[in-house]
Amino acid sequence: MWIRNCWYVVAWDHEIPSADAPTLFRRVVLGEPLLIYRSQQGDVVALEDRCCHRHAPLSAGRREGDCIRCGYHGLLFDRGGVCIEVPGADKVPAKACVRRYPAVLHNKWVMVWMGDPDAADPALLPDNFSCDHPDWRYLPGYLHYDTPWALIADNLLDFSHLSYVHEATLGGSERIAHVRPAVERIERGVRVSRRVPGVPPPAYYRPLWDFSGPIDRWLDYTFTLPATLLMHSGARPAGAPEDEGGDGIRFHSCQALTPETATSTHYFFQESHPSDKGDAGTTQSIFDGLMAAFGEDRDMISAQWRNLGLGSEFPMLSLAMDAALTQFRRVLQAASEVEARRDVAARSSG
Amino acid sequence: MWIRNCWYVVAWDHEIPSADAPTLFRRVVLGEPLLIYRSQQGDVVALEDRCCHRHAPLSAGRREGDCIRCGYHGLLFDRGGVCIEVPGADKVPAKACVRRYPAVLHNKWVMVWMGDPDAADPALLPDNFSCDHPDWRYLPGYLHYDTPWALIADNLLDFSHLSYVHEATLGGSERIAHVRPAVERIERGVRVSRRVPGVPPPAYYRPLWDFSGPIDRWLDYTFTLPATLLMHSGARPAGAPEDEGGDGIRFHSCQALTPETATSTHYFFQESHPSDKGDAGTTQSIFDGLMAAFGEDRDMISAQWRNLGLGSEFPMLSLAMDAALTQFRRVLQAASEVEARRDVAARSSG
Amino acid sequence: MWIRNCWYVVAWDHEIPSADAPTLFRRVVLGEPLLIYRSQQGDVVALEDRCCHRHAPLSAGRREGDCIRCGYHGLLFDRGGVCIEVPGADKVPAKACVRRYPAVLHNKWVMVWMGDPDAADPALLPDNFSCDHPDWRYLPGYLHYDTPWALIADNLLDFSHLSYVHEATLGGSERIAHVRPAVERIERGVRVSRRVPGVPPPAYYRPLWDFSGPIDRWLDYTFTLPATLLMHSGARPAGAPEDEGGDGIRFHSCQALTPETATSTHYFFQESHPSDKGDAGTTQSIFDGLMAAFGEDRDMISAQWRNLGLGSEFPMLSLAMDAALTQFRRVLQAASEVEARRDVAARSSG
Repeated sequence: MWIRNCWYVVAWDHEIPSADAPTLFRRVVLGEPLLIYRSQQGDVVALEDRCCHRHAPLSAGRREGDCIRCGYHGLLFDRGGVCIEVPGADKVPAKACVRRYPAVLHNKWVMVWMGDPDAADPALLPDNFSCDHPDWRYLPGYLHYDTPWALIADNLLDFSHLSYVHEATLGGSERIAHVRPAVERIERGVRVSRRVPGVPPPAYYRPLWDFSGPIDRWLDYTFTLPATLLMHSGARPAGAPEDEGGDGIRFHSCQALTPETATSTHYFFQESHPSDKGDAGTTQSIFDGLMAAFGEDRDMISAQWRNLGLGSEFPMLSLAMDAALTQFRRVLQAASEVEARRDVAARSSG
Repeated sequence: MWIRNCWYVVAWDHEIPSADAPTLFRRVVLGEPLLIYRSQQGDVVALEDRCCHRHAPLSAGRREGDCIRCGYHGLLFDRGGVCIEVPGADKVPAKACVRRYPAVLHNKWVMVWMGDPDAADPALLPDNFSCDHPDWRYLPGYLHYDTPWALIADNLLDFSHLSYVHEATLGGSERIAHVRPAVERIERGVRVSRRVPGVPPPAYYRPLWDFSGPIDRWLDYTFTLPATLLMHSGARPAGAPEDEGGDGIRFHSCQALTPETATSTHYFFQESHPSDKGDAGTTQSIFDGLMAAFGEDRDMISAQWRNLGLGSEFPMLSLAMDAALTQFRRVLQAASEVEARRDVAARSSG
Repeated sequence: MWIRNCWYVVAWDHEIPSADAPTLFRRVVLGEPLLIYRSQQGDVVALEDRCCHRHAPLSAGRREGDCIRCGYHGLLFDRGGVCIEVPGADKVPAKACVRRYPAVLHNKWVMVWMGDPDAADPALLPDNFSCDHPDWRYLPGYLHYDTPWALIADNLLDFSHLSYVHEATLGGSERIAHVRPAVERIERGVRVSRRVPGVPPPAYYRPLWDFSGPIDRWLDYTFTLPATLLMHSGARPAGAPEDEGGDGIRFHSCQALTPETATSTHYFFQESHPSDKGDAGTTQSIFDGLMAAFGEDRDMISAQWRNLGLGSEFPMLSLAMDAALTQFRRVLQAASEVEARRDVAARSSG
């Protein structure tokens, strides 16, 4: 299950070739093939990557200015997806076009609106500010999952797994699982806050800060539709006051899940540190730690998915720690029902 | 969709081991496993490659003269597919046999009639003369496709793709796509003729002939059931008279598609040049060019097939350039309906 | 089709890590994921390898004494499969448990009862004595099949295939297929006895015994539910008296098939020789010969399975040599019907 009337991250800015590069960028999103390219003015264009003629991918063709020529039989499409030339034909049929998707470049994320283009709402773009802000530094991360996106969302909605999956990386203490986070329903999602006092610093922190003793950790994030995590987190010497400018370490992390198909997922992520703390080595160390830890998640979730493939006579057992994921699933269900009603209304008025 | 009452190319002559070789040749055709071997008299035999006992492939067994012994439990079959020995049993059950298919060696192509054996008609063998004629020289080509055969047939029925898929190999000019070919319905298929005046020679021609200027190209082929392309083609200096014996370059090409399964295909092909023009290097150069170009086709058709796998809310859009493939699909549809009626009649009289 | 109320071999003893090893052993059996481990007392424990919370495999977690902690969110299960701790929760829900399977270590085979635990019957354990007896020596064998278990059972129930599949290894003579074995229906299976007089020794025997002339071979085995072969076999100089203590060669072999899924199988096997005949080289030579021969079986059965995947308009043809496999299939069918009636009765009384 997924919703369509929302922005999905489909790529990092740097993944899209420049306007004069010889290659075209394809990515499958919600089971639909997208061609994403940069116009000569520098904005991004997202078209259905499937020629209306024989369904060949346009990404196997070539650019001609801001137009795309299909590499199979040469149909030429403008940046609006309208076919403007059929080789050997005097006229272009009115139906000759491919779907155009609203697309914007937003703080280094290429965002595509997969639903009704008229409903595309810039106010719904996520506040991933630290992806493009001089006060913050990071390296962009991407992982591909051969599992449904919802299993990864479940993982992100319950950080008690840090104690077990990431024992040797991001976690470092069972205390993370032992404290109960505050979970709050917000517009289009949930807010989760976890305070973990007096724990040893995890391996992930050690290259970044010279903690001489135990630390107080804090992890505050929102997880909103379609599947975006925005998190402030950090740590200070145990018992130090909750002052963000104070001593210690802090991060801002932006993460997004985008279904590729019903059983595979794109995962975009970063974790930024303040530009005035640390150097390029710090940035690399954070990235390396994240990749190692997110590999641990992928191993676990892939194993979970293999188990699910075997079937079970018993459903999953819901526990108190599932509060946030249960709430988010309700948010998703409600949004999905709104979409379904909207589709019915559109058909009856159409 | 495919028809059964016709000859399919199942192998090149050289692929079938000699009668005294220790190996047996298996190929799956129309979803059925075939064992193909050479009798001691030199003709080819095609049997169902599936023992009637436990369905093991006979090709995993061994020859005994012109008989085949199953390698699992030792049943012995004669060249007509009749079981003539069951080890340890005094009698052979009357039902113990495997299917025998009419098979002939025809101009280096091993042809098998996949339908009613009584209907096998030598008059329907294709005129692939240049596969076995002293006036012509070629090297035999084979490619395996993981796509349905019909997508490859579509490709061969519209050469406008030469301008785009084969821009750097067989094509070399958008003019090929811009001219309208003559398409004519013939017995069991279509005839397509394309004249392309005043174009630069494609890369494929350059090692073969020293063209000092633009050329006039001609491509004349039939495409007939089940899926056989027979083509005369060539080029002469632009403006030279249409005299086949004259200056320039000419080819004869024989190509055939044989469904392996509903989603995979055998592709047999060659392009011959006159024996009195060029040497072994010429033959090799043509083969290399063809393999490179047919690899381009396979890349494109495989990408098209992946897109089709994603599904689309829109059907393919038919264009003027699809005239030949539309006509051929009608020929196929009509032949398929004839077969269906014939099957119904056979059952009701049987 | 398989039955559940019986013991399945799920591993060789040596496959299960020791109680202080850092790894956990997972194996899928009858489509169910099992975690198998050794308690600190040395007995074996088999639990459902799927946490009741989010269905992650417990084998991706860790041991804590004889308990297992899930590596995803930290639930702790005791050796009975009961969850005894949920991190961050004061109480453990009553439903929080995973399935426990009766498991025993029996002559180096780890046996698991896959059906109703209350019905687990030690009297049904197979008499695989030579797997753990000072008078016998062997090396343990395992092969994984990507085919249904029943095709391998069929193979083991008809040794006429030794003449053809194993011509160059275990067989060596068509006479094996030509003699008719005695087939007797026994409790839960069949007994098959084959006497092959006056044949050359097969390649497999040659490193083991210096036969100067032809031999008389004997192969006596039972094949019982679920899929266990226990065999005495051997050979003596042709015409020598049937005296087990006499001159010649003899073996005891224990083999078991365990369905992994509907289309894949675990195959456990050994062939023991008397400890007082031969040395370590003998044991290795027997193992190597068996692996070579059982690879031949797997090749044939995998090819048969590929053929079955293509479908056929004809069923398999039953022959006299299929007597044992036909009888065993009836035994299996009857046992399966007993289980089905038992399940119905359990549901109506439950």
